[in-house]
Amino acid sequence: MSDHPPPDDEDLTDVVRELYDVPFHRANDVEVVAATPERARLRWPYDESLIGNPAVGAVHGGVISSLADVAGAAPHVGALGDYTPTIDLRVDYIAHATGGDLVAEAEAQRRGGSIGVSDVTVYAGDERVAVGRGVYKLSE
Amino acid sequence: MSDHPPPDDEDLTDVVRELYDVPFHRANDVEVVAATPERARLRWPYDESLIGNPAVGAVHGGVISSLADVAGAAPHVGALGDYTPTIDLRVDYIAHATGGDLVAEAEAQRRGGSIGVSDVTVYAGDERVAVGRGVYKLSE
Amino acid sequence: MSDHPPPDDEDLTDVVRELYDVPFHRANDVEVVAATPERARLRWPYDESLIGNPAVGAVHGGVISSLADVAGAAPHVGALGDYTPTIDLRVDYIAHATGGDLVAEAEAQRRGGSIGVSDVTVYAGDERVAVGRGVYKLSE
Amino acid sequence: MSDHPPPDDEDLTDVVRELYDVPFHRANDVEVVAATPERARLRWPYDESLIGNPAVGAVHGGVISSLADVAGAAPHVGALGDYTPTIDLRVDYIAHATGGDLVAEAEAQRRGGSIGVSDVTVYAGDERVAVGRGVYKLSE
Repeated sequence: MSDHPPPDDEDLTDVVRELYDVPFHRANDVEVVAATPERARLRWPYDESLIGNPAVGAVHGGVISSLADVAGAAPHVGALGDYTPTIDLRVDYIAHATGGDLVAEAEAQRRGGSIGVSDVTVYAGDERVAVGRGVYKLSE
Repeated sequence: MSDHPPPDDEDLTDVVRELYDVPFHRANDVEVVAATPERARLRWPYDESLIGNPAVGAVHGGVISSLADVAGAAPHVGALGDYTPTIDLRVDYIAHATGGDLVAEAEAQRRGGSIGVSDVTVYAGDERVAVGRGVYKLSE
Repeated sequence: MSDHPPPDDEDLTDVVRELYDVPFHRANDVEVVAATPERARLRWPYDESLIGNPAVGAVHGGVISSLADVAGAAPHVGALGDYTPTIDLRVDYIAHATGGDLVAEAEAQRRGGSIGVSDVTVYAGDERVAVGRGVYKLSE
Repeated sequence: MSDHPPPDDEDLTDVVRELYDVPFHRANDVEVVAATPERARLRWPYDESLIGNPAVGAVHGGVISSLADVAGAAPHVGALGDYTPTIDLRVDYIAHATGGDLVAEAEAQRRGGSIGVSDVTVYAGDERVAVGRGVYKLSE
């Protein structure tokens, strides 16, 4: 965090849970496990309806990019107490996600007056399946 | 297309539809409108369960990135007759998606022996809401 | 341009030239051919010292990404009359640059209060060698 | 490294130095400090001709993206013993580079038959000024 280093131990889990209680997350049981101004962990439970590649039984890449997006936003959303529209997102896929529930670990890399940046790693079970980086808008 | 320019008028819609008949697409009614080796159009019908930002009634960014991902893959999937795992995806969000069904227009930019690249524009109704670029793996 | 459509015909070439008269551009003879609030064209003359891959005689990828970066910033720099730090840049390489002077064509895609986005295409002679997208910071 | 974990302690510094002895690197005194199949460190010495933003005395963003590009390629170039054309590169800028020589630390994240992926962090002196991710082509 180069700009506004906030206290790392401030628990924002309830703040983010409330803001993330939206239809898309409810429909998919996306869970905010924990959030601070510095990092967040989110879980998207495995379900057969998430399969995108039946040949190998892999979860759809869109599920992974969706989870990366919201996990990356979570520390900023919590710190701001408001939604932070995504400016851009890059996801690099590393392995097929065939290993159960998806868990994303996000770490805020930067938070200034106008933008926030986060790095995210997505796991399927124990396996790292993707890494991502999101840039989020913090003000108009 | 810098490498293997295929005939633009070859209709691959049925090929892509069959390969895209996967649980995640069925669960979301994602439709392959049309596909050739050069371009594809896909539609994701609007539904209230897709809302990610209730403050402005906007569709979740993850829906948009998911649609960009599969639309970008479609010309390559069709040309190859097989799944093309996503290597990386970048999505730049332009406007809130508050305007109805999502439609993605993909254009293949490059197809070599090992990778394919596509540009995608995502619309909500008439409004352009995001642009993306995906890189896809065409061989082991 | 989704936010602040400026007049397309405003000639900002002199404004950008003055702001781009910096040591790195002078050392490399980078030239601002033309700039408006909507688009810009820049040229980086070919020189043997730019070679990065002697096996095929191709210009270094870093030259191409550098040119994409500053070309993408140019419309925003002109409209703002000030430097616009790059938030992030993605470059997709399409072909080896073996064809002479490099020319970048940039088109502003979005300009809001806090960020600007541009698409860039880089040519070596007549051949399109790369496409890029840059996000630039317009305010603190 | 998900695909072909090579021995981490194999010293490829000489291999990479020889392949990186190209005009663009010589013209800029870019130095391969060290390289293995897993990681690499490169240095680009500070020089006033690298300034891109005279208002704050910052090195040009293109210098940083160039260094990120070649540092990310280095572990793959070494492992392969050949050039690995860049497929795409993303750079996220974190702070102005006003602190002296630039040093890039690259870590290979993946190396398969057709592509390699690396993460790179660029420092100016002690300060982290950018992070990047490159995807490189390992075969035709």
